[in-house]
Amino acid sequence: MKDVNVGICGLGTVGGGTFNVLERNAKLIAGRAGCRIQVSRVASRRHRSDIQLGNIPFSTDIYDVVQDPDVDVVVELIGGYDAARELVLAAIAEGKHVVTANKAMIAVHGNEIFEAAKEKNVIVAYEAGVAGGIPIIKSIREGLAANRVNWLAGIINGTGNYILTEMRAGRDFEEVLKEAQDLGYAEADPTFDVEGVDAAHKLTIMASAAFGVPLQFERAYTEGIGSLTPYDISHAEALGYRVKHLGIARAREEGLELRVHPTLVPVNHMIAKVDGVLNAIVVDGDAVGQTMYTGPGAGDEATASAVIADIIDVARSVSCGSNQRVPYLGFDTDSIVDHQILPMDEIRSAYYLRIQAYDRPGVLAKVASILSEHGINIESIMQKESELHDGRIPVIILTHTVQERQINQAIAQMESLPDVEGKVVRIRAENFV
Amino acid sequence: MKDVNVGICGLGTVGGGTFNVLERNAKLIAGRAGCRIQVSRVASRRHRSDIQLGNIPFSTDIYDVVQDPDVDVVVELIGGYDAARELVLAAIAEGKHVVTANKAMIAVHGNEIFEAAKEKNVIVAYEAGVAGGIPIIKSIREGLAANRVNWLAGIINGTGNYILTEMRAGRDFEEVLKEAQDLGYAEADPTFDVEGVDAAHKLTIMASAAFGVPLQFERAYTEGIGSLTPYDISHAEALGYRVKHLGIARAREEGLELRVHPTLVPVNHMIAKVDGVLNAIVVDGDAVGQTMYTGPGAGDEATASAVIADIIDVARSVSCGSNQRVPYLGFDTDSIVDHQILPMDEIRSAYYLRIQAYDRPGVLAKVASILSEHGINIESIMQKESELHDGRIPVIILTHTVQERQINQAIAQMESLPDVEGKVVRIRAENFV
Repeated sequence: MKDVNVGICGLGTVGGGTFNVLERNAKLIAGRAGCRIQVSRVASRRHRSDIQLGNIPFSTDIYDVVQDPDVDVVVELIGGYDAARELVLAAIAEGKHVVTANKAMIAVHGNEIFEAAKEKNVIVAYEAGVAGGIPIIKSIREGLAANRVNWLAGIINGTGNYILTEMRAGRDFEEVLKEAQDLGYAEADPTFDVEGVDAAHKLTIMASAAFGVPLQFERAYTEGIGSLTPYDISHAEALGYRVKHLGIARAREEGLELRVHPTLVPVNHMIAKVDGVLNAIVVDGDAVGQTMYTGPGAGDEATASAVIADIIDVARSVSCGSNQRVPYLGFDTDSIVDHQILPMDEIRSAYYLRIQAYDRPGVLAKVASILSEHGINIESIMQKESELHDGRIPVIILTHTVQERQINQAIAQMESLPDVEGKVVRIRAENFV
Repeated sequence: MKDVNVGICGLGTVGGGTFNVLERNAKLIAGRAGCRIQVSRVASRRHRSDIQLGNIPFSTDIYDVVQDPDVDVVVELIGGYDAARELVLAAIAEGKHVVTANKAMIAVHGNEIFEAAKEKNVIVAYEAGVAGGIPIIKSIREGLAANRVNWLAGIINGTGNYILTEMRAGRDFEEVLKEAQDLGYAEADPTFDVEGVDAAHKLTIMASAAFGVPLQFERAYTEGIGSLTPYDISHAEALGYRVKHLGIARAREEGLELRVHPTLVPVNHMIAKVDGVLNAIVVDGDAVGQTMYTGPGAGDEATASAVIADIIDVARSVSCGSNQRVPYLGFDTDSIVDHQILPMDEIRSAYYLRIQAYDRPGVLAKVASILSEHGINIESIMQKESELHDGRIPVIILTHTVQERQINQAIAQMESLPDVEGKVVRIRAENFV
């Protein structure tokens, strides 16, 4: 199978992330794609001294990438509308496949770009344009392809969701926006984020993929979150609703609804529970019902994850010589490694322990000293003298992460104490950090 | 492009759902797949009078499907280990592609099946085996293909999650299990679900796709939820943790952890908030960070959604004559319909209204009568005499779903009342039902 050569246009946040992840995970990616994927040329207005390009040719003219006969896939990461459109159309004209993270360009010029690409039989992939690292375009176009989509709704701007999450504590929009800017979550000019333009770009793209309609960004309705007050947010909560800034697309017989605006959603609905800078999209399909996709909607490597998934898709589609576009387990047979499964004694976890103690002085000290002997640190401990359980005083302990063998040895020792009755309850705990 | 003929083996819950969705959405699916996908043969032990097979040949011998030269894709929905394995190997030997929902068979016999399939250059697809309608296999093998997966953790048994959710209210395991059986969530023999065997099948498959290791179900550790008590569940909550029955796979230098057991997770982590019969899987990748996939893990049409997604994948891979395996917007150009985007006046939504009223008697009656005149029903209303806001008494109303034109007309009329000050606050509300 032939190697796939990638030319990166634009070495900003996402461009740098894409380059770094392609380099760092090169072997793993080759195992998944079934061929080597290598960056063969990079062009950007400015050189970045923090990115180690090595021998890879660099130029400041992005058209050097487009005209390089060795480049198979042009990765457009320069952003903006017109310059990006021209670059992409030029790449297509040269017969290159295109991967882009540019939601604005796709939402506004997508119909023209896709038509040109179809003419030249090249792929244009844009997963990274919507919801960063969440594979939502793939889920809609492929994973949910059996479904008539009834509607989809998304928290597709992390800045806005962060602001609304903080406003639930009674804080004003302006105050939280300023904080978000200080934290780097919000741009100096936050208009695109808080007015909903960014979300409308993404919604337009998702709606077209879900319903099979041409991209019509100019018809999307957009309303921002700037006029929301903590007063209304708390009264919505009192009614059982949470305020989220949603992009909503709904199919109705008369036509499609395509709208971005603050929205009350039932507090118990799964999308109401998505807080902070996270993005999440719910898709309601006639067969599957509601599925939700949650994750980071921005960031250098999160977005790079989607850019590279698209590059791997291109490689699998054009370079794969067999029917099995995707290998059975996601990796080429040669890349399947028989990494051993660890016996349970060797796994690492934190532990919740409940020890049923007789009401004698010193039992806590004995238990703590056993844990300490086995090198087990305590995260928290709960013992209420007043709270009898089955006639005993339970000592409840949450440990730090240790090897399971250590905790089992400590438990055996505890159970042999005369102050302890019966078995120690042990439940594993994970902090997922 | 050539049509793709599907032969369905097994007409139980998922088989019936698959047949019905393929029939109902035939046109839409053809638009997505780029070719017609038709059921050309069905075999099952029993005929189902509630499924309208029409002219499609039916037999009680599943091998009639395998031996039918017109069948391109054999859909294995008979379940179990050995009979299913034999059927699938026979289908592969005949050069048929295979789509299956059988997690047990893949977890236990997958290595052998994939080897046979590779030999014959046919596809074996098994999305429906893991987490029902959630496209988690596609997300791991394709959407997250750029990532070195650090770990994944899933609520992959809906019955278990339902039981644990109910136990948070202080109810006993046995009591909730009985209720789940009465509701049809749990099988008469609940062992597979509550002991974690079902979850271990799914975990084994996800881990192999995430880490590129052979399937090793026999090495997975399994611990059920039967010994959990409401007492420990509530004390875990007091410590800031929720108890979930998780399948966890983690890559460590020494080897892989592969384990299913009750687990404390921080209450603020997104997976802690997944309640009831829903499934959810979190994948932690080195580039993307944590993404989560939530939805129904079982059900006839939810699982059929995944079965058919796999069939469409096969069709796109083997029948597609161009580089664009997946059409740009997910639908063939000929199937793109210019369904109009509705003007905002014509969208339908519920509404939160806040009306700033002077403290005069009768204002509530006037507001209610305006809403009634415009055919707008009230879902709930809040007015606290004692609660002044900006020196006025706010009337807060949540309406039922109406057309936006109606609400705008009603608002204009309210704003012209002498009892109402300034603009009426209007925020849209969605119930997502």
